[in-house]
Amino acid sequence: MKSKKDLTEKTIESELVFQGHWLKVQRDKVLLPDGGKSIREYVLHPGAALMIPVLDDGRLVMIEQYRHPLKRNFLEFPAGKIDHGETSLQTAHRELREEVGAVAKSMQLMTRIHPVIGYGDEFIDLYMAKDLTWVDPEPDEGEILNIQEISFDEAFALLRQGQITDVKTSLALFWYEKILNAKW
Amino acid sequence: MKSKKDLTEKTIESELVFQGHWLKVQRDKVLLPDGGKSIREYVLHPGAALMIPVLDDGRLVMIEQYRHPLKRNFLEFPAGKIDHGETSLQTAHRELREEVGAVAKSMQLMTRIHPVIGYGDEFIDLYMAKDLTWVDPEPDEGEILNIQEISFDEAFALLRQGQITDVKTSLALFWYEKILNAKW
Repeated sequence: MKSKKDLTEKTIESELVFQGHWLKVQRDKVLLPDGGKSIREYVLHPGAALMIPVLDDGRLVMIEQYRHPLKRNFLEFPAGKIDHGETSLQTAHRELREEVGAVAKSMQLMTRIHPVIGYGDEFIDLYMAKDLTWVDPEPDEGEILNIQEISFDEAFALLRQGQITDVKTSLALFWYEKILNAKW
Repeated sequence: MKSKKDLTEKTIESELVFQGHWLKVQRDKVLLPDGGKSIREYVLHPGAALMIPVLDDGRLVMIEQYRHPLKRNFLEFPAGKIDHGETSLQTAHRELREEVGAVAKSMQLMTRIHPVIGYGDEFIDLYMAKDLTWVDPEPDEGEILNIQEISFDEAFALLRQGQITDVKTSLALFWYEKILNAKW
């Protein structure tokens, strides 16, 4: 990507303006490339990992979860926040064990995505988890979910019909479809 | 989507805990379906609209913008927050005029996505804008950007190569590819 003009903003001041139970918000004063000044506020996030657990028969493991901000259930692939000191690969393995109760011999990175570039620094690494064996799931406290096994075609139909709208799950499915069909 | 068990959380208390220059954070105390209690914090957002401006020769208009939370440039489709009283369709038309300097005869909704279901109520409606005519762009103050015209193949290659990682832009490209190839 070549830039016609420099767009870089320089941080002048930086302050943690909100520290909640879960969320942290940072406010930076920035110097714009045209000499002006502006305020940027954004959620600080350690990053996350998602994985598509692929069963030996090709079906995918999905979880249905109530998402309070939107007051309804969403169908998603298992995912979670990176713990301090973890790599995203370790997070993917840990979340697979905790949420699904599975261990994967193969965990392959598909891509990295950025869900909230306007007001958050989160990234999510999207993995495929294969060659699964089963252990007991260890869900986090307050994490209540339904596990479903679903064919790729069914999942892709739900995406097309607008019933899967979570961005990390949707992008994982689009990437998986390309890989499945050897399109890239 | 059928639920095996009810996952609904009931809001017991609700409080606006942060009101910044741009960001608002709400904290709710919730009753879990298993009788436990938990805290949910999330960013309140009015929703947004994105559009793919399609030129008569098939090229797409993209904008390169510095995104301070991640301290680098991103290649994106034009998008913006819904103003009070607007529909997302009106937002799409307004942002097309402001950021690109174009008016579209045809503005077609592709789908709605949810970028941050874990800690935000934002949705983004993804549109295709066609039959464009040109007017003067009116960028918001502090919004400095580079406009690029790029073929669909080039944009899709950047997505595959991991150079387009903004979720709204990536999903708009995947949807547009399906529509272009009459795959759904």
